[in-house]
Amino acid sequence: MIDVQLQKLITDNINDNLANIDAKDDVYQALSYAINNGGKRIRPLLLLSLLNDLHIDINKGLNVACAIEMIHTYSLIHDDLPAMDDDDYRRGKLTVHKKFNEAIAILAGDALLTEAFKVSIDPLLTDKQNIKIIKELTHLSGINGMIYGQELDLRYEGQDLNEEQIIDIHNYKTGKMISLPLICAAIIADREELIPNLRDVGSKLGLAFQIQDDVFDISGSLIQTGKTQGSDLKNNKMTYAILKGEEEAIKTYQELFNDIMMKIKSLNLKDNHLLSLVDFISNRTF
Amino acid sequence: MIDVQLQKLITDNINDNLANIDAKDDVYQALSYAINNGGKRIRPLLLLSLLNDLHIDINKGLNVACAIEMIHTYSLIHDDLPAMDDDDYRRGKLTVHKKFNEAIAILAGDALLTEAFKVSIDPLLTDKQNIKIIKELTHLSGINGMIYGQELDLRYEGQDLNEEQIIDIHNYKTGKMISLPLICAAIIADREELIPNLRDVGSKLGLAFQIQDDVFDISGSLIQTGKTQGSDLKNNKMTYAILKGEEEAIKTYQELFNDIMMKIKSLNLKDNHLLSLVDFISNRTF
Repeated sequence: MIDVQLQKLITDNINDNLANIDAKDDVYQALSYAINNGGKRIRPLLLLSLLNDLHIDINKGLNVACAIEMIHTYSLIHDDLPAMDDDDYRRGKLTVHKKFNEAIAILAGDALLTEAFKVSIDPLLTDKQNIKIIKELTHLSGINGMIYGQELDLRYEGQDLNEEQIIDIHNYKTGKMISLPLICAAIIADREELIPNLRDVGSKLGLAFQIQDDVFDISGSLIQTGKTQGSDLKNNKMTYAILKGEEEAIKTYQELFNDIMMKIKSLNLKDNHLLSLVDFISNRTF
Repeated sequence: MIDVQLQKLITDNINDNLANIDAKDDVYQALSYAINNGGKRIRPLLLLSLLNDLHIDINKGLNVACAIEMIHTYSLIHDDLPAMDDDDYRRGKLTVHKKFNEAIAILAGDALLTEAFKVSIDPLLTDKQNIKIIKELTHLSGINGMIYGQELDLRYEGQDLNEEQIIDIHNYKTGKMISLPLICAAIIADREELIPNLRDVGSKLGLAFQIQDDVFDISGSLIQTGKTQGSDLKNNKMTYAILKGEEEAIKTYQELFNDIMMKIKSLNLKDNHLLSLVDFISNRTF
C-alpha cells in the first residue's frame, strides 16, 4: 500500500525548499507546476521506506529523497520537449512546454536539476555522507546513468530493437534512478554493505516498472496513464510489450517482482515498508 | 596578459575529467565539442589567478575551476537553442544544436551541468570546503542566480529597457558566474573574509565584460566576436551599447574596470595575477 501521509510529507518538503526561490516568476511557476503534477513520489518513497525498515529517522533522508524527485522531474520536463519525445500530456495534464513555452521548460528543468543538488545537502547528515550522496546523484542521473538512457532512447527511435537493447535502455533510463534512492538510504543508515544487493533490486524494479508502463501504453487510456494511449506505437518506439506481446510482458514483470521481493526478504530488514511499497507497485493499474 | 599555460592546464583537466564518461557517443561528442570550442577560460582563470595571489597551490582549485567552466558551457549550449536565443554560431563555429541536433544539445547541457557537480568534489579540499563550494555553485548558477538572468533576458526580449533593467539582467546572467570563481577561491584559501569585496568585484567585472560584448556586437565582425555582427539588434535585444551609444558604453566599461582594479589593489594580495588578468580583459578586442 502507498503511504499517503509520507507522500504528502515529500510533496510539502519539496515545495518548502522551492519557496526559497527569490523570484516567483515564470520559471518558478513552471517547475512548481511540474512538481505538483500528481507524481506518485515512488523514488522518494523507496528511500524513506527503506530507512523505516532500517529503523533510521526518516527526517535524515527527507531532503535527499526530495532532491531525487526533483532530478526525476527535471528529466521528465526535458524528455517531453518537442526535440525529444514531443509529448503534449503527462499524468493527464499539459506538459510544461505546452502549458508555458519551450524556453521556460528548458530553464525550469535546468533550475530543478541545479536546486536538487542544493536541497540534497542536509545538516542532519555528516559532511562525508553528504558528499557520498552527491557523488551517487551525479553518477546515476548523469551521462553514465539516466542521461545515457535518454541518449540510447533517442538513438534507437524508429528502429526494430531486440530484447537486450530494450532492457539496456530501461536499465539506464529508469533503473539507475530507481536504484539511487535505495543506495542513498544505505549511505544515510551507514549500511553500505547493502549497496550491491540494493543496486540489483533497483535495477530489476526499474525494468519491471518500465515494462508495466509499456503494457499500460498499449492497454490503458489517457485517464489511467495520463498519457495518450498508443503513444509508443505512434512514436515508432519499440517497447518490451510491443516486442513480446502483452501477455508475455505481464508474465515477465510479475516474475521480476517476485525476484525483487525474494531479494528484499533476504536482506533481513527490521520491517516491511519497502516490501509493502514494492507490492503496491507490482499491483498498480495506472 | 593571459596565461596560456594555465589556460591549457584548465582545458586538459576538463578533458581528463570528461574521459571518465563511459560511452563516447553523441552526447559525449557534443559536450566535448562545446568544451573545446576555443573558450577563453576567463572564469577558471579568475579562480586560479586569485589562488596564486593568495599563495595557495592552484592544484587545490583546478577541479572547482573546471566545474565552473563546465556550468558556463552548459548554459551557453542551452542559451543558443532555437527556443532560447536561436544562435547558429558561437566563437565562429556552429553551435551544438546546429552541429549535432537539438535533442543532443539539450542532453549535452544537462550532462555537463550534472558532471560539473561531480568534478567539483576534490579530495584535496576538506569535506566542509567541498560542501560550501557546492552550495555556492548551485546558488550562483541556479534560479536565484544565472538562470534568473536567462529568465529576465527572455522576458525582456523585444522590449525597450531602461539602464536599470539592463544592469539587472547582466548582474544575474553574467555577474553571478563571474563572482563564483572568486568566491570559491576565497573558500579554498580559507579567506572567507574577502568574500563581500570579491562579490562586488565579480559583479562589476561581469557588467563591464557584458558591456564590452555588447559593444563588440555593434562594431565587431563574426571573426572577431565569433557571433554574427548585429545579432542583438536583429533579435530585438536592447543592450547597454544600443541604449547609450557606443562611445558612452566604452566610457562606462572603462570606468568600471578602473573601479575593479582599485578594489583589487585594496585587498593587499601578495601578487598581481588577478590584476593582470583583469587588465587583459579590459583591453580585449574580441
